[in-house]
Amino acid sequence: MNILDSLKWRYASKRMNGQRVPSDKVETILEAIRLAPSSMGLQPYSVLVIKDEELKKQIRPIAMNQAQIEESSHLLVFAAWDNVTPEHIEEFIQHTASVRNMPAEALADFKNSLLQMAAGRTQEQNFNWAARQAYIAFGTALVAAAAEHVDATPMEGFDAAVLDELLNLKEKGLRSVTLMPLGYRDADNDWLAKLPKVRRQKEKLFLEA
Amino acid sequence: MNILDSLKWRYASKRMNGQRVPSDKVETILEAIRLAPSSMGLQPYSVLVIKDEELKKQIRPIAMNQAQIEESSHLLVFAAWDNVTPEHIEEFIQHTASVRNMPAEALADFKNSLLQMAAGRTQEQNFNWAARQAYIAFGTALVAAAAEHVDATPMEGFDAAVLDELLNLKEKGLRSVTLMPLGYRDADNDWLAKLPKVRRQKEKLFLEA
Repeated sequence: MNILDSLKWRYASKRMNGQRVPSDKVETILEAIRLAPSSMGLQPYSVLVIKDEELKKQIRPIAMNQAQIEESSHLLVFAAWDNVTPEHIEEFIQHTASVRNMPAEALADFKNSLLQMAAGRTQEQNFNWAARQAYIAFGTALVAAAAEHVDATPMEGFDAAVLDELLNLKEKGLRSVTLMPLGYRDADNDWLAKLPKVRRQKEKLFLEA
Repeated sequence: MNILDSLKWRYASKRMNGQRVPSDKVETILEAIRLAPSSMGLQPYSVLVIKDEELKKQIRPIAMNQAQIEESSHLLVFAAWDNVTPEHIEEFIQHTASVRNMPAEALADFKNSLLQMAAGRTQEQNFNWAARQAYIAFGTALVAAAAEHVDATPMEGFDAAVLDELLNLKEKGLRSVTLMPLGYRDADNDWLAKLPKVRRQKEKLFLEA
């Protein structure tokens, strides 16, 4: 199936049937997230992978009682760094030097530009920047799930502050930005499954410059 | 090629060779952007498709003089709505009703929830929300380009205010958020082409909850 067929097949399932997604498919989706690009390569976010039924049950009321939270196989929580710190940058530089088999000192200019970038922004600006990067990974995950014929519902409708508290994200320097239940559509009980996809017309979305 | 192979193949080309991307491949990438999901389905952004060499030449200095701007085949400018207005929502509702062959009145509750959502946020909050949605489409485009073996460089390093002025985006109610030159890598002249991809380790990026 090519990418356009995958994108046409997918939709934001409102009901899922509780069936487990095989672990090889989950691993593929997670690896796609890991390979997603980000500005400067920092990947300023983490993704929580939740399988525990009890925890999903606790999250459901925080997310407008949406059924897919519990009916999903795995619930992914995309959480962006709440700031970009010198420690983040140091870890990134050390890791880059290690992967590329070079001394960290060779990356001193790059490191300084990252430090300046982060210091030149408020904490909220750094968080907003990190959140945008998380959305690139989120988009990548949606395509990867569709390619695997796994349903994935993009979800912004939840109380981030309450979820962050439940998942102890604040102490990890993270703030939840979006959710993605993974599972299989329950088409018979999903009002949205039968409706045609609505997308803006080509001539409105794309502008010639 | 599966999605992971595509993601491993892609990288942020720093030099491109000027070769044209065939129009069917460009159309596939644009259609992937059009099919990308967004919160509430609003797709609160536009994408400018720039082929004109003179215009690319003018944009290059605005984007830290990055060579790919001129060496690309097509330059995509992702521009988010600078606000979410009642007119945007009305157009979306009318379009949804038309695609789903239902009276717009049947969508009155949905429309009101959208109006309340937009009115409950400042203009800047609406813009930031729109920008995040644009990043989902941006991530989708990166995967689609890789699947077509077209190079695509994610680019945030540009002066958005100056670019918006050049492209008259303000009067269209848009603000540029990110660029994506499409083309083909000039691997011989690209220092990054030979370096291994750096990504955060699985055990750091993913957290069990």
